[in-house]
Amino acid sequence: MLLSLKVTYKTATGQDYKAGSPPVDFSPVSNNGPTTTQDEDFVDPWTVQTSNAKGVDYDKLIVRFGSSKIDKELINRIERVTGKPPHHFLRRGIFFSHRDMNQILDAYENKKHFYLYTGRGPSSEAMHLGHLIPFIFTKWLQEIFNVPLVIQLTDDEKYLWKDLTIDKAYEYAIENAKDIIACGFDINKTFIFSDLDYLGMSSGYYKNVVKVQKHVTFNQVKGIFGFTDSDCIGKINFPAIQAAPSFSSSFPQIFKDKKDIQCLIPCAIDQDPYFRMTRDVAPRIGYLKPALLHSVFFPALQGAQTKMSASDPNSSIFLTDTPKQIKTKINKHAFSGGKDTIEEHRKYGGNCEVDVSYMYLTFFLEDDDKLEQMKQAYTSGALLTGELKKVLIETLQPLIAAHQQRRKQITDEMVKQFMTPRKLAFDF
Amino acid sequence: MLLSLKVTYKTATGQDYKAGSPPVDFSPVSNNGPTTTQDEDFVDPWTVQTSNAKGVDYDKLIVRFGSSKIDKELINRIERVTGKPPHHFLRRGIFFSHRDMNQILDAYENKKHFYLYTGRGPSSEAMHLGHLIPFIFTKWLQEIFNVPLVIQLTDDEKYLWKDLTIDKAYEYAIENAKDIIACGFDINKTFIFSDLDYLGMSSGYYKNVVKVQKHVTFNQVKGIFGFTDSDCIGKINFPAIQAAPSFSSSFPQIFKDKKDIQCLIPCAIDQDPYFRMTRDVAPRIGYLKPALLHSVFFPALQGAQTKMSASDPNSSIFLTDTPKQIKTKINKHAFSGGKDTIEEHRKYGGNCEVDVSYMYLTFFLEDDDKLEQMKQAYTSGALLTGELKKVLIETLQPLIAAHQQRRKQITDEMVKQFMTPRKLAFDF
Repeated sequence: MLLSLKVTYKTATGQDYKAGSPPVDFSPVSNNGPTTTQDEDFVDPWTVQTSNAKGVDYDKLIVRFGSSKIDKELINRIERVTGKPPHHFLRRGIFFSHRDMNQILDAYENKKHFYLYTGRGPSSEAMHLGHLIPFIFTKWLQEIFNVPLVIQLTDDEKYLWKDLTIDKAYEYAIENAKDIIACGFDINKTFIFSDLDYLGMSSGYYKNVVKVQKHVTFNQVKGIFGFTDSDCIGKINFPAIQAAPSFSSSFPQIFKDKKDIQCLIPCAIDQDPYFRMTRDVAPRIGYLKPALLHSVFFPALQGAQTKMSASDPNSSIFLTDTPKQIKTKINKHAFSGGKDTIEEHRKYGGNCEVDVSYMYLTFFLEDDDKLEQMKQAYTSGALLTGELKKVLIETLQPLIAAHQQRRKQITDEMVKQFMTPRKLAFDF
Repeated sequence: MLLSLKVTYKTATGQDYKAGSPPVDFSPVSNNGPTTTQDEDFVDPWTVQTSNAKGVDYDKLIVRFGSSKIDKELINRIERVTGKPPHHFLRRGIFFSHRDMNQILDAYENKKHFYLYTGRGPSSEAMHLGHLIPFIFTKWLQEIFNVPLVIQLTDDEKYLWKDLTIDKAYEYAIENAKDIIACGFDINKTFIFSDLDYLGMSSGYYKNVVKVQKHVTFNQVKGIFGFTDSDCIGKINFPAIQAAPSFSSSFPQIFKDKKDIQCLIPCAIDQDPYFRMTRDVAPRIGYLKPALLHSVFFPALQGAQTKMSASDPNSSIFLTDTPKQIKTKINKHAFSGGKDTIEEHRKYGGNCEVDVSYMYLTFFLEDDDKLEQMKQAYTSGALLTGELKKVLIETLQPLIAAHQQRRKQITDEMVKQFMTPRKLAFDF
């Protein structure tokens, strides 16, 4: 009976039962709860799976992860505090969940500094549209709040998880850095780092990694990330590597010896398990918990059931695609919410909730009026799938061409400068 | 039945059974074999335990660990190759076991470079006599072979295992560095590093740590080190931190981009599990296996059943002890192999095999003839315990006073120089 109680405890908390230890506040990542097994979505840093064509049920995810919804009130407060209109990612619920964002705004109102931390796992040379989402939003955050930004490239993670050499993983990191820089980050306010590089260059990073390592057990990472005994110790250790940049003392070149600069992390919600763990550890090692802003996943062309995959060229639109490739991919692969025949479509209308072209427009068509117009016309049947796709193609072609143009301007020298540990344009 | 086979497999190999995977060549560290449970010794990096007053049975340990005995032939070859008489630690079996030492000598004869790597876990400010053994021997090796030496101070390990702050662990590392430098290492040929410091200063170290991390599973470190699911991920990861300095590319400032400089590790045999693991991983990541020279343990004053402990002041003679403290400790605590009364002692003689004062003399009385004289006189009963202790006191008092004298000369500047990543007096 004790054994069965322990199993129940573990299902509920994601941790092994330990006598005398109260549960820490992790929610389990896995959704395989005892009552529902078929209906729910699966979300962890490596897999996003849902059976619903509308995509993951984000309201349920908020409840399961224990985060807070970004509601109208919070969006209004951001506008009030910064004096800037809210980004369409906020207005449209693309960034939909948060942890402690009000605390960041309190600090900001009291003229207290914070910094932004986001990142990317460089698993291949080419990034796709979905990878841009956190960077587009982070750039906006950096501009409206005027704060330092650190961007982690987890080349060590990719080496550990994939069949890659260390050199290849690092090479991908550098290539990805160029795409990130091409998003328009301010070189005087942004530090981009490869883990493989920066761990060997910082007097603070490894010390924070060790502090996190001391306060997280194998049981905990097993519960949070699903690691097993046959996983390599590198994977088991990696959560500490992604946690440590949440603490300002990992960046002494930027923050000097300041240990109390709070961190705000914009990321897709699949990264939340890392930072739930980080937030649990933070107060035990004398640090502030990082705050978070979570985005939804960017759907694959084939539909919102999964994330885009960098390894399937037809699931994504890549930042290297030509106008022709963009056109072909959208026309050929973008899942349509339209009806089978023109007649039926005119009669019953299309379904925006499952139409990938429409979803993509919510990400990239900034004009609210035009988007609303599209929605109504498509839903009513006045707008056909081919016409909707044409709007998307005409939105993405110039956007990606402009990105390619900017990327071409990025020199090795600039990459080197962004990636050099250095003082940024702020005084701490 | 399958379950029971798995348990048998694990007992024999120290690893969990995995279908389709042949066992790697680790010997289990634990001695709790299925046949003998009471008689055998327990040796791992944290515990040395034997019920035998003569100390651990080192011949059995060689068989269990799968290393090779340092025999007369090997000692003669070292003498022939270097043209120097062998150190009394070799002549007296204090360094008694090795792995691949002949390969090091082959390389040396072919004018190929190698380097020495040893270390210390800085668990307190004060080091004791036993801690000197690997350093005395390493200094001799450095002199006769004229090779670079790296010394690791595992302050990260001590932070992870003990109730210490990071700052305190680092402080101990610096204090210990002074004692190590006082052993007389050549500043132009020796690099001493704190893990907490050097990991953030080397472009090669972390990359090698990650390479090791990718090739060792939790199952393996569980089998080798006895870690459990409730151990922190820092402990689970630490073996990779101790492994990586076995590879020359962890020290680009010394070896440039050379990845094939072989490493020779002199250490007490309880450290062998780390390097068995390292040797298993090395060829899989394209590196040479490090060679090893193993020493016996330095017995506690109370007897050879355990190692000295830095936390029990009366179990050890500290490098900070005064002549009077040395005298008192030896007279009061050194376990005697003599008889209860003078009459009996004269008649039956003393037992050198369990007498701690005699054991200490084998470590520190360099004069072979005088040592042999002591042995015969003590065994015959001509020499009384008090007289033997007097010889030891008179041997250790000047030795420790000289150490203290040398330590006093060590400036912060010198420590800093030893601990600065830099080119040494060798070309690679």
